[in-house]
Amino acid sequence: MPPTRINFADKFSKFTETFSPKVVARMNDYEFKLARVLGEFVWHKHDETDETFVILDGELTIDFRDGEVRLAAGEMLVIPKGVEHRPRATAECRIMLIEPVGTVNTGDAGGQLTAKNDVWI
Amino acid sequence: MPPTRINFADKFSKFTETFSPKVVARMNDYEFKLARVLGEFVWHKHDETDETFVILDGELTIDFRDGEVRLAAGEMLVIPKGVEHRPRATAECRIMLIEPVGTVNTGDAGGQLTAKNDVWI
Repeated sequence: MPPTRINFADKFSKFTETFSPKVVARMNDYEFKLARVLGEFVWHKHDETDETFVILDGELTIDFRDGEVRLAAGEMLVIPKGVEHRPRATAECRIMLIEPVGTVNTGDAGGQLTAKNDVWI
Repeated sequence: MPPTRINFADKFSKFTETFSPKVVARMNDYEFKLARVLGEFVWHKHDETDETFVILDGELTIDFRDGEVRLAAGEMLVIPKGVEHRPRATAECRIMLIEPVGTVNTGDAGGQLTAKNDVWI
């Protein structure tokens, strides 16, 4: 059978939690995760890997220690490994994250916003 | 300085060729490439890697030896390594490819549709 198409709107209809990335596909040892963002996340970094944000709907700001980057639907950003960042959104936005299997959402920071990993929808 | 935002519409304004992927970002040893598709590509496979198609605008059909998958904007597909496929579109569509650095667009097939690799815009 041919591989299975992933439809973002269908996948987003399956969850409502924010800051809780859901895996929708795997490519080699990387995962594609969909997430809703609303409010302010924690400052953190990933010492082992770069991390990619693709904005699917709405607007996302990512704070860095030396400035901020404002992103809208149709834009993406690669955050280099080891670089501290803090995503935030004043209205709910929908994003896709691309990162190696096993990457934890809160990176080195941990804490109560740490999501269960490898949850597929 | 914070990392640089990538805007898909801006990037697409920089080229018009079809079947000629342009690199817009790198994450670890993977590249994000934008491409325009119009007409029928060649049957090929990538023996060393999975390959991801994200549809940004329009509609893309990917033929497999055992069926076809029709994709529209807001959808994606991961093609497992070693699986023969042939993208085609009857009207121009815009896609993003995600694959390891060095992946050749025509895979094992080669031929005149083989694009110059690692062309950044």
